[in-house]
Amino acid sequence: MRTVDTIMRKRDGHALEREEIVAFVQGVTTGDLPDYQASALLMAILLRGMTPQETAWLTDAMVHSGIRVDLSDLPGVKVDKHSTGGVGDKTSLVLAPVAAACGVPVPMMSGRGLGHTGGTLDKLESIPGFRTGLSLEEMRAALQRCGCAMLGQTSQIAPADKKLYALRDVTGTVESIPLISASIMSKKIAEGIDALVLDVKTGSGAFMKTEADSRRLAESLVSIGKASGVRTEAVITDMDMPLGVAVGNALEVIECLEILKGRGSADLVDCSIELTVRMLLLGKVATDRADAEARVRAAIDSGAALDRFRQIVEGQGGDPRVADDYTRLPAAPFRYMVRAARAGYVTRLDAELVGRASVALGAGRDRVEDAVDPAVGIIVTAKPGAQVSAGDAVLEIHYREQARLDAALVLAGRAITIGDEPPALRPIIVGEVR
Amino acid sequence: MRTVDTIMRKRDGHALEREEIVAFVQGVTTGDLPDYQASALLMAILLRGMTPQETAWLTDAMVHSGIRVDLSDLPGVKVDKHSTGGVGDKTSLVLAPVAAACGVPVPMMSGRGLGHTGGTLDKLESIPGFRTGLSLEEMRAALQRCGCAMLGQTSQIAPADKKLYALRDVTGTVESIPLISASIMSKKIAEGIDALVLDVKTGSGAFMKTEADSRRLAESLVSIGKASGVRTEAVITDMDMPLGVAVGNALEVIECLEILKGRGSADLVDCSIELTVRMLLLGKVATDRADAEARVRAAIDSGAALDRFRQIVEGQGGDPRVADDYTRLPAAPFRYMVRAARAGYVTRLDAELVGRASVALGAGRDRVEDAVDPAVGIIVTAKPGAQVSAGDAVLEIHYREQARLDAALVLAGRAITIGDEPPALRPIIVGEVR
Repeated sequence: MRTVDTIMRKRDGHALEREEIVAFVQGVTTGDLPDYQASALLMAILLRGMTPQETAWLTDAMVHSGIRVDLSDLPGVKVDKHSTGGVGDKTSLVLAPVAAACGVPVPMMSGRGLGHTGGTLDKLESIPGFRTGLSLEEMRAALQRCGCAMLGQTSQIAPADKKLYALRDVTGTVESIPLISASIMSKKIAEGIDALVLDVKTGSGAFMKTEADSRRLAESLVSIGKASGVRTEAVITDMDMPLGVAVGNALEVIECLEILKGRGSADLVDCSIELTVRMLLLGKVATDRADAEARVRAAIDSGAALDRFRQIVEGQGGDPRVADDYTRLPAAPFRYMVRAARAGYVTRLDAELVGRASVALGAGRDRVEDAVDPAVGIIVTAKPGAQVSAGDAVLEIHYREQARLDAALVLAGRAITIGDEPPALRPIIVGEVR
Repeated sequence: MRTVDTIMRKRDGHALEREEIVAFVQGVTTGDLPDYQASALLMAILLRGMTPQETAWLTDAMVHSGIRVDLSDLPGVKVDKHSTGGVGDKTSLVLAPVAAACGVPVPMMSGRGLGHTGGTLDKLESIPGFRTGLSLEEMRAALQRCGCAMLGQTSQIAPADKKLYALRDVTGTVESIPLISASIMSKKIAEGIDALVLDVKTGSGAFMKTEADSRRLAESLVSIGKASGVRTEAVITDMDMPLGVAVGNALEVIECLEILKGRGSADLVDCSIELTVRMLLLGKVATDRADAEARVRAAIDSGAALDRFRQIVEGQGGDPRVADDYTRLPAAPFRYMVRAARAGYVTRLDAELVGRASVALGAGRDRVEDAVDPAVGIIVTAKPGAQVSAGDAVLEIHYREQARLDAALVLAGRAITIGDEPPALRPIIVGEVR
């Protein structure tokens, strides 16, 4: 079997055989397959597509490029949540302690922010001392200690994905549902979970801009999960506007703590509860939706979830006092208010532009190797639907450098639309695939 | 302008800008563009296509990756012929001396055989002493001396093509009409010609199997030629069966000499005359087709063409006595007859299988680095349409090694079909594009 024959078969629209896909992933992992052949095949896959069966084989081969963690000796149904990425998308910091407090073990491997979307690891690392670089042994210890581990992907997890992603990034082959699906699911399956809740974002700030594309991605992801023995459900949620009010790492940690204290923005509360309810049901610690929702709300109202947050932070080297004293988190020295130019209703707040403004401030990264500033970011003070007078603050910008503020303002200014009528906003939960 | 943006634009079906194409070709030529980006773009081009304008820009950029030879100080309209490749396709060795004898200067840069198709350089080099590795200065001297130079592509001619072809060969991106067109035409335009006759083969032994694909390729090639100021015409000719009777290097030289002596297979005579007539018309040495054909036949009948052949051979270091004494050419030690298994008509003689049988004997090469045996090959003793009795010879195989004969016989045996009725054969000249 020559690689060029595999490339030509995919180029001509044929479905690949399992052994062709395995040889491709093994060649990428060992480096025996030249990059120029890998990228030609990736482009052919992007343009010709893959069947669900091919995508499942690809995912499986990527899982087996590293180790598949075995957590079966730990009690409970291990459940993780994965989001396809958004702006202000901070639900992991809420739902992980809530689910753990409700008895669901959560082994959560997350990523860093890239482009206009944020990443859980960056948010966690804004907590002084917090270590995300756990070994698999440390992950296991954290699960035993407090039912939750929040860490970055280790080098043993789907190493083929890291190499493939780097190649896709520079060859225009990122935007393929089969390749995206295999990338996401190979990492999740390898981390040793029994069940997975997917939060597939849709809208301007999401990778998938349309509901139809988001649904296709959700269906692909759920299908792979099932083929791999991981019970998987997907919720499709709105990402036309930032989720909640905070965008930026320490600012988002504060907002999550507010949610864990029973306060906070309705869209973020609704989204977090929806995802956590599903985790409880998949984790078999609740009998039905009503029971699950009652348990989630009780964990918040009783302070058990906040307490679990403190345990997780302390167990991973962070300062648990941030939960009660926000001044222990990094803060930007300066603030600037973006104000409404006219009276009316905020009809639109473009998530992608707000995300890019936040990156311009230093809260995110354009390139993988960039460092992030944990303190800077944006607070939305008037979400879409809010009525404003001319001069009312819409965005509160937390910044460190004037030049970065100037760059952010160009983007943030374009993000806001004010109209005469209240907008028709879609609900935060757009749909589901299970 | 980032390369990845160019890749994504082509991936999404957009036409590229001239500067994007120029940057791509320059990057390939200098090596600054990573192969993995080049191959992703090549696959996107193969699957998304290129407009005639993009293809013309690509060709022009490839021409300018090296030098465009200037022969304008030499008298006459310089005309070349190029074939897309076939089995037994030896017209160059006939038409170059005929056209030169008729007053058309022929600066002909040719290639070597690859896969089941033969190459002019291999055929010429079966003549003892013949040098095809001329410098551009030697090419010019040969043109001045005898109105014809037959040589390989020098390293100054379209170096981007050499790099791109090597990459296409291993990434499944050969079969693209825009890429094939740019590859062919960049080399032809760079060699300094004023006009070009293209012989686009169609059928089992051709790169393009269907008449429709062959016509599309012919139209693309002619369109590029015109855009570059080279007057270009294409003839589409049959390649379902081998052209003429000989397949193999020295055997084909002998067949060409027979044609130059006024003998030989009708299909080869007709094809060679058709192409030469067009060269004379483009070269402005004939007033119309009838005049051109009369001049071509006179050059053969008078011996002027054969004499010109001797001059070309002698000028490039070869032994001109081969023209009169075929025993001066390499000959294989053994012969084997493939005989008709039954009585009837030869209805089909598959060109590709005969070509592959010839490669198996050692007459061609599967890989660029393979050496060829100039002596071995196949003589067709019963072309399609011939009536045969059981036991009549259909193919005469000239071989050196038993193992190679055995391999060739497997292929050659499958090439022959004998039926009860005479086949309906299409004419050698299938169509034209001008």
